[in-house]
Amino acid sequence: KKVFIDIRSNKIFELFVITVIVISALKVGIGTYPLGPNLTVGLKALDYAVTIFFLVELLIRLAAEPNLKRFFSKGWNVFDFVIVTASLIPIDESEMALLGRLLRIFRVLRLVSMIPELQVLLNALLQAIPRMGYVTLLMFIIFYIYGAAGSIFFAEINPTLWGNISIAMLTLFRVATFEDWTDVMYETMEVYPLSWMFYLSFIFLVAFIFLNMMIGIVIQTLQS
Amino acid sequence: KKVFIDIRSNKIFELFVITVIVISALKVGIGTYPLGPNLTVGLKALDYAVTIFFLVELLIRLAAEPNLKRFFSKGWNVFDFVIVTASLIPIDESEMALLGRLLRIFRVLRLVSMIPELQVLLNALLQAIPRMGYVTLLMFIIFYIYGAAGSIFFAEINPTLWGNISIAMLTLFRVATFEDWTDVMYETMEVYPLSWMFYLSFIFLVAFIFLNMMIGIVIQTLQS
Amino acid sequence: KKVFIDIRSNKIFELFVITVIVISALKVGIGTYPLGPNLTVGLKALDYAVTIFFLVELLIRLAAEPNLKRFFSKGWNVFDFVIVTASLIPIDESEMALLGRLLRIFRVLRLVSMIPELQVLLNALLQAIPRMGYVTLLMFIIFYIYGAAGSIFFAEINPTLWGNISIAMLTLFRVATFEDWTDVMYETMEVYPLSWMFYLSFIFLVAFIFLNMMIGIVIQTLQS
Amino acid sequence: KKVFIDIRSNKIFELFVITVIVISALKVGIGTYPLGPNLTVGLKALDYAVTIFFLVELLIRLAAEPNLKRFFSKGWNVFDFVIVTASLIPIDESEMALLGRLLRIFRVLRLVSMIPELQVLLNALLQAIPRMGYVTLLMFIIFYIYGAAGSIFFAEINPTLWGNISIAMLTLFRVATFEDWTDVMYETMEVYPLSWMFYLSFIFLVAFIFLNMMIGIVIQTLQS
Ligand code: NA
Ligand code: NA
Repeated sequence: KKVFIDIRSNKIFELFVITVIVISALKVGIGTYPLGPNLTVGLKALDYAVTIFFLVELLIRLAAEPNLKRFFSKGWNVFDFVIVTASLIPIDESEMALLGRLLRIFRVLRLVSMIPELQVLLNALLQAIPRMGYVTLLMFIIFYIYGAAGSIFFAEINPTLWGNISIAMLTLFRVATFEDWTDVMYETMEVYPLSWMFYLSFIFLVAFIFLNMMIGIVIQTLQS
Repeated sequence: KKVFIDIRSNKIFELFVITVIVISALKVGIGTYPLGPNLTVGLKALDYAVTIFFLVELLIRLAAEPNLKRFFSKGWNVFDFVIVTASLIPIDESEMALLGRLLRIFRVLRLVSMIPELQVLLNALLQAIPRMGYVTLLMFIIFYIYGAAGSIFFAEINPTLWGNISIAMLTLFRVATFEDWTDVMYETMEVYPLSWMFYLSFIFLVAFIFLNMMIGIVIQTLQS
Repeated sequence: KKVFIDIRSNKIFELFVITVIVISALKVGIGTYPLGPNLTVGLKALDYAVTIFFLVELLIRLAAEPNLKRFFSKGWNVFDFVIVTASLIPIDESEMALLGRLLRIFRVLRLVSMIPELQVLLNALLQAIPRMGYVTLLMFIIFYIYGAAGSIFFAEINPTLWGNISIAMLTLFRVATFEDWTDVMYETMEVYPLSWMFYLSFIFLVAFIFLNMMIGIVIQTLQS
Repeated sequence: KKVFIDIRSNKIFELFVITVIVISALKVGIGTYPLGPNLTVGLKALDYAVTIFFLVELLIRLAAEPNLKRFFSKGWNVFDFVIVTASLIPIDESEMALLGRLLRIFRVLRLVSMIPELQVLLNALLQAIPRMGYVTLLMFIIFYIYGAAGSIFFAEINPTLWGNISIAMLTLFRVATFEDWTDVMYETMEVYPLSWMFYLSFIFLVAFIFLNMMIGIVIQTLQS
């Protein structure tokens, strides 16, 4: 057991694992280019090697742990376990191929589980979410109300943009990002000339809530 | 009377009211999709049920209150009263149908009157408005001046964008959101090659005032 | 003299002046709409009345001042004087008409000279400018370098966007506002496939300097 | 030696050097306009003069320094040395002409090496970079994962936007700047109707990390 703990804590081993993750990430990247048959075979071999290395590394870490319960109590360990074991399923069958490729992409996230600074950063980000809970709810209510009103009034003008409440909310998100929002507005203004009030009130509301949320987070973080 | 106060303060009753509001909101959302005749009838029945439940809930809260004056002194109570009583008006007549549907959308806002945290948030937002009073006035003066100048110089180039001061101000708001603003500029630059100065000075002015407003709010909030 | 000082300090007189400025502003706005001959005559009469009122008001304020030097030592007084006296020049001649209309637009700015809160706000804005002096110079240097490089490499690809350094800098400003910047990029990437580095490095530089400027202003304002 | 130190420290000499840099910059700018043959000859002569002046100035500063090692220990001195000596290489050969013109553009950066305030500003900017190290890494990981997923799923829909991971990451940067991002989305939604989740999750992730980075920098700067 002590041997496994030694290996796990070894700085060179850690660096080697990170290197393998980066190689695995590069492999995924290279795989998106059109490749000759030799390279495809090479990448496949590399994939086997990486998969097996990840399995060995996981077993070392499992063996170094006093009991399984403690190992799986950490979220990142569960993530590593799922990613590594799921990679073992053969992906040659065409219908699973896409899922297998996606899985290999998520391996890049193992970088976060290996680099403590990234974990600290991600935890800080996750802690910022609850602070935004009620603002997000309020924002959603506004999107919902405007989405419902938009789909009731504008659905017949342009069903692609306002056909139902889901599409209308997506269109409103587009308006909130200022993405060709005047085209959307000009179209409805031909039927309802006053509909610019719909868009402007929406933009001001969303921008106002967004700004206050940002300022609120700055002040909350400063106080703690 | 004590029974009504008990019901009103009951946590489960509150949760039930919130659930009915959410159901009412979902009903509005579903109503924007094309539905079969059975579902349409079902939704109509659901609408009657929700309307009656809201009426009962309002009557309970009215009965629990010592006097009517105190009840109507709270803005959200007035809002609830208007929304609930207006829903009682039959909406089958075609000309009122749209208004009735809008009314049902505004019911979603009853969530804010039921969830205290959302009320706190909204009050904080409303309190931030007076701070921006004079900045908004200054911003409006700038839009007005540029709008007047724009409609005087560019109205003949493109009446759709610069025909009168209202349209010109809407176009300037578009420029302020960077929405295809270069198309607007290139068009006028063909007649007035120096008109880029009009747009750039406008953008810099608006961005400068906006940034200073934001910084001002951050500092004001930090001091209090 | 005391009568003039009394009039000038009178709150009702001040409100009346502000009302006339607002009327004058509304007149400018209405003038951008197509009007019947009666209204046009009416607006012209209104313009005469406003011009004469502004002259009288200026003379009262001049008479109330102990000496002319002190009157003209305030920037806003000089502004008022220029705007009011220039309005007296008849504008019927067609070539001066546009200038006369512009002058009437600038009268709206007299609101700032009448409302102390707006003056305070504007002074605060003007004080923020020197703080940004060297950042603006650095930003200009970056625009100049990228503008020169852009016009050397891309002028032959699209002379409308990159023909000379001035046009190139305008195009770069467009890129900095994210306005259809990928269209600009894709066009040059067809000739220079690596030119995305030109745009991305420019965007990152500008965004980075802009963010640091904003943060710098927040911190400087907090310290003082 | 004392003479050279005196010249170097002389305020008038410094101002003269800055003037020459500005002239050199203007020359670069003018050179991007179509010019008559006389002006072209004039600019060429000016270029020789500027190049020789820069050489003389560099030699004065070299002579004023006690030893060469100390001179080249400052980054800006190395920059000046490279720019000045590289300018001496004749640029008449066509293949080197573009490089020579680029070199002359970079001479504008000598302004930074001459104006201490700009150096202070640039150093402050450079010091802000390490603070963003891990956030940049996290942002890159997100772009990489979404880029890989995007090129796997969408490559066949539009190879110009999603053909391989590099192009896909450029497209994602475009989406992050909200540049016609809905066009990109609508295209993939025709094949994968749920692909709006890909874009929205990406936008929220990037915006969230970006906002937290900004807030983090504000707070870190306030603490130090
Ligand atoms: Na945009
Ligand atoms: Na756009």
